[in-house]
Amino acid sequence: MTMTRRNLLEAVGMAAGSAAMYHAMATLGHAQDSTYTGRVVLEGEPNGRRVLILGAGLAGLTAALELRSAGYEVQVLEYREKAGGRCWTLRGGHTYTDLAGVSQKVAFEEGGYLNPGPWRIPYNHHAVLDYCKRLGVKLEPFIQKNHNAYLHRSEAFDGKPQRFRHIATDYRGHIAELLAKATDQGKLDAEVTESDRVKLLESLRSYGILNDQNAYVSSDATSEYRGYEREAGGGRDGAPTPSSPLDMTELLQSDLWTWLSDPESVHHQSAIFQPVGGMDMIAQAFAREVGDVITYNAKVISMLQDDSGVTVRYEDAQQGGDPIEVTADWCVCTIPFSILGQIEHNLSSDKTYAIDTMYYEGSVKFGLEFNRRFWEEDEHIFGGISYTDLPIALISYPSYDYLSAGKGVLLGGYVWGADAYQFNAMQPDEAVKWAVEYGSRLHPQYADEFAGGVCVSWHKVPWVLGCYGIWQDKDRDYTAAVTMEEGDRIVLAGEQLSYLPAWQEGAILSALDAIQQLHEHATNR
Amino acid sequence: MTMTRRNLLEAVGMAAGSAAMYHAMATLGHAQDSTYTGRVVLEGEPNGRRVLILGAGLAGLTAALELRSAGYEVQVLEYREKAGGRCWTLRGGHTYTDLAGVSQKVAFEEGGYLNPGPWRIPYNHHAVLDYCKRLGVKLEPFIQKNHNAYLHRSEAFDGKPQRFRHIATDYRGHIAELLAKATDQGKLDAEVTESDRVKLLESLRSYGILNDQNAYVSSDATSEYRGYEREAGGGRDGAPTPSSPLDMTELLQSDLWTWLSDPESVHHQSAIFQPVGGMDMIAQAFAREVGDVITYNAKVISMLQDDSGVTVRYEDAQQGGDPIEVTADWCVCTIPFSILGQIEHNLSSDKTYAIDTMYYEGSVKFGLEFNRRFWEEDEHIFGGISYTDLPIALISYPSYDYLSAGKGVLLGGYVWGADAYQFNAMQPDEAVKWAVEYGSRLHPQYADEFAGGVCVSWHKVPWVLGCYGIWQDKDRDYTAAVTMEEGDRIVLAGEQLSYLPAWQEGAILSALDAIQQLHEHATNR
Repeated sequence: MTMTRRNLLEAVGMAAGSAAMYHAMATLGHAQDSTYTGRVVLEGEPNGRRVLILGAGLAGLTAALELRSAGYEVQVLEYREKAGGRCWTLRGGHTYTDLAGVSQKVAFEEGGYLNPGPWRIPYNHHAVLDYCKRLGVKLEPFIQKNHNAYLHRSEAFDGKPQRFRHIATDYRGHIAELLAKATDQGKLDAEVTESDRVKLLESLRSYGILNDQNAYVSSDATSEYRGYEREAGGGRDGAPTPSSPLDMTELLQSDLWTWLSDPESVHHQSAIFQPVGGMDMIAQAFAREVGDVITYNAKVISMLQDDSGVTVRYEDAQQGGDPIEVTADWCVCTIPFSILGQIEHNLSSDKTYAIDTMYYEGSVKFGLEFNRRFWEEDEHIFGGISYTDLPIALISYPSYDYLSAGKGVLLGGYVWGADAYQFNAMQPDEAVKWAVEYGSRLHPQYADEFAGGVCVSWHKVPWVLGCYGIWQDKDRDYTAAVTMEEGDRIVLAGEQLSYLPAWQEGAILSALDAIQQLHEHATNR
Repeated sequence: MTMTRRNLLEAVGMAAGSAAMYHAMATLGHAQDSTYTGRVVLEGEPNGRRVLILGAGLAGLTAALELRSAGYEVQVLEYREKAGGRCWTLRGGHTYTDLAGVSQKVAFEEGGYLNPGPWRIPYNHHAVLDYCKRLGVKLEPFIQKNHNAYLHRSEAFDGKPQRFRHIATDYRGHIAELLAKATDQGKLDAEVTESDRVKLLESLRSYGILNDQNAYVSSDATSEYRGYEREAGGGRDGAPTPSSPLDMTELLQSDLWTWLSDPESVHHQSAIFQPVGGMDMIAQAFAREVGDVITYNAKVISMLQDDSGVTVRYEDAQQGGDPIEVTADWCVCTIPFSILGQIEHNLSSDKTYAIDTMYYEGSVKFGLEFNRRFWEEDEHIFGGISYTDLPIALISYPSYDYLSAGKGVLLGGYVWGADAYQFNAMQPDEAVKWAVEYGSRLHPQYADEFAGGVCVSWHKVPWVLGCYGIWQDKDRDYTAAVTMEEGDRIVLAGEQLSYLPAWQEGAILSALDAIQQLHEHATNR
C-alpha cells in the first residue's frame, strides 16, 4: 500500500473541495443528493493488497483504475481481446463473430460507426461524465429530440410518416383548447380557484398557441411552432404560407402521441452526450490508464474464495490449453451473471440464487451505411430519432459530421421484446435485409442508397448473452448480491447491481461501491 | 461574361438534381415548399457585367460569390476592416469601439468568444446550411433547450431559480390531470366522441405521466421525468428517492410557464446549430472565396444611378481624405437602412420612404468570462439557456468545450426593449457590472469566479445602429423596396428585405432574390 502523505493531502484537499462545492450548491437550494460524490477516496492501510478484477468492462476498468491509484496491486482478466465490454464501437475493418460462429465484417467508411451497446450519456450521469473529464474523452451533444424527425405507424395517416413537430404542436394545441374551453365554461370551477382559473387560461393560450377565442387554428402563430406550409423567404414573394393543424380525432386515433414524452424523460433530456468518434473512446481512455494490468483473452473457468484469499483459474480464450491459476487477496468480479452462472464459484447461496435467476434481456441494433446522407440533404433531419411501430422500432440519424458529403451510417433499428427474438432467429444478413426493407417505409431513398450493414443481436453476443440483467425479485435479492459479507473475499459489480441497469453510470457506480466495501474489509474498518 | 458551355452544363445538371430531389421528397408526401431551392443559376449573357456591391455582410458576400461565379466582374465596398457585418464574433485580443468612441478590449482566454449578433442556425435555414456545406464551415449542435437549466422570476418561489424540467413536467402533469378528470367526469362529452374520449384519456396518462386514477403525484414514474430527489445509484444504498411535484397554484401563479414553449418554436427547435469556433467562421469562409474583391474601410457617401449605370463615392473610413469615385453597370446595395438613410442616393420615392421610416431595433448582449465552468461543475448545466425576468433576460451557457478545465465564456444577457435602453445609457464597464450583479441571483458563483466581460449594445454599433430593421407598414411598403423597377440599376438586399428579419437566412435569401432580379434586368429578360 503506497498511501503516502502526499496522496493523503491530495485526498483531503479533494474532499474539502467537494464539501465546499456541495455547500455552494445547497445554499442555492438546488443541490441534488447524487449518489456520485466525486472521486473516490480510499484511506488506510489494507490487509492484503493484491486484487484480481474479472472483466474489463466499465465496472472492471473503474475498479482497476481506482484500486491501483489507492495503492493496490491489480490484475484484470478479460475474456475479449480488448477492453470495454458493452462499451463497444464497431467500425470499418472490424470483424464481429456471434455465438453461432457467424462473422460479420464491417465495411463502413472511415468515421462511420455503430455503438451496439450504450450510445448516450445523460447530463446527470455524473460519474461517467467525471471519468470522461479526467481521462480526456471529448464529448459532443447527442441529438435525442428532433422536431423534424418522423413519428410513424403503419395504420395511421395512411402509413405516411408525420413530422414530430406536427404531432407535438397539434397535440399540445388540441388539449390546451379542450381544457381552456372547459375552464372558460366554468366546468373546472370545483377544481381551480378564480385566480388560478385566470392564470390557467393565460398559460394555456401560451402553451398551446391558442388564439383570443382559446382556439387552436391555422395561423402564423401556430405555424411558428408546427412549421409553415411554405417557409418564409427573402425579396419578392418571401411571405410564408401558414400550415394547417391535423384533425384532433385523426391525431388522437393515430397513437402517434405515444412517443411525445420520450425525449422528456430524465435519461433522454437535453443536454445529452456521446463521445466524439464512438462510445468505446471511453474504453480506450481507461485502457490507456490501466491497459498494462489487463490480461486479454482470459476465459475465467473458476473463482473460489477462502479465508485467506481468492483463487481464479482461466484459460486462453483463443487457443485453449491448460488452465492458468492466479491467486489474490481480494477479487472484484464484474462478469455478467449470464456468464458467471456457468462458471465454478463458491459464492453464498443468496448470491448464487441471484446469479442463477437473473434474466438477461435481449435487444438488436442495426448499423446501416448509405451512399449519402439523404436524411439531411432531402429531409433536413440532422441527428435525432424517428419512431415507428415497425419491428425496427426506431431510426437514429448520426449526431456527428453533419452536412458531410461522404457516406453516412445510421442506427437502422433498436429492437426489444418479441421483435428482437424474430431478428435473433435470422442470419445477420437476412436481418439487415429486413431492417432495410422496414426502414424504406419511412425513407424510400433506402432502396437506392443502401451500401451495407451490420446487425448485433445481444442474445448472441458470446461474452454477455444479453444486453442487461433483469431481476426476478430485486427488492428481495438485491442487497445480498451487492453486499460483501464478513469473510467474503469477492465482491460483485456491474450494471445489474445498480438502480441504473443497462447504463454505464450504473456499472461505474456499482464498481465504486464495490471497491469501497472491499477496502473496508481489507482495512478491517 | 464568361458563361461557358461547361458552366451551362453544370448549371443544367444542378437544376436537374434539384428537381429529382424535389420529386423524391414530394413522393414522400413531406416536401416543404422552401423558398431556397438550391444553388442559384444565372443563365444568359448580361448587358453590362460590372457590379458594385455595397456591404460585405452575408447579403453582400452572397451576392459577390454568386455574381462572380456567374461571370460578373464584382467589387465590394465594406465600411469595416473585415467581412461579415452582423455575422461577427468577439475573441480575446479583439478591440471593439462603439459609436460613443468607447473601446473595449476583449481579454477572453483562447477559445472563448461572444457572438454579438446571430448565434444559432435553425435546421430549416436551408440557405445558410447549404453555404456552410459548400464553404466547408463545420457546424456543431447549439443547445437551445436544456431541461436542467433554470427558469427564474424574482417574485416566484422566493426568488429561487427552478429547473426547467420541474416546471415543464409539473405543468404538463397538472393540466393533463385537470383535463383527464374533466373528461372522465363527462364534462367534455359535447366536445369529444366516445372513441376520442378513450384515446384522450389514454394519451393524457402518457403525456402527463398520470397514475391509474388520472392523478399527477410523486412517484418513480413522475420522477423519471422531473428527476429524482435523490438520484439512482449502484451497489448498496443505490435506490433512488422520488421527488415531489410543485403545487399547482404556486406553479400557475409563478408565471414560469411563460418560457415553456420557447424551445418548441420552429426557429429554436432541435436540431439547431452553431459554427465551430464562432459565428464569423461563416464570414471568414465567404471572405476566403471573395476577399480579393472586397475593398475594406470604404465608407460610402453617395450612390447614384442613371440610365447607363451607377456611380458610388466612398472615402477611407479610417483616414478620411478625398472621396474615391467608382462606377459600375449595376449595384447591389446591402447597407442597412439605418445607415443608407444618411447617404446621398437617388432611389425612387417609394424606396426612400421605406428606408427613411424603418426603425432599427436595439438589443444588448454580454459576454462574461469566468475562471471555471461552475454551471457545469456545480450545477450540471451543459449548454442551453436559463430565463429570468431580471433585465438580463437570459443566461446562455457555451455549447462547446463541455467539461473543459479552463475559463469559460457565457452569454450573460440578451436584452431587448426598455431594458436594452437602460443598458445603452451606461458605459460598457458599468453595464457589465450590472450583468454580473443580476446573474449572481441565479448563480452566486458569479461573485467569486468573474474574470471579465464585454458588452455590445447594438444601437451603439457604428455601422448599423441597431440589430435589425422593423417596418412601419410592411404590407404596404415591402414590395416597392425589394423590387427592381424598369430602369433601376440598383437593387436592395439585406435581412430587413425578407420575411426572416434578424436572421442570416433572411439576408442570404434576400440577396439571392436581388441578384436574380439584377440578372433579369441585365439580360433584358
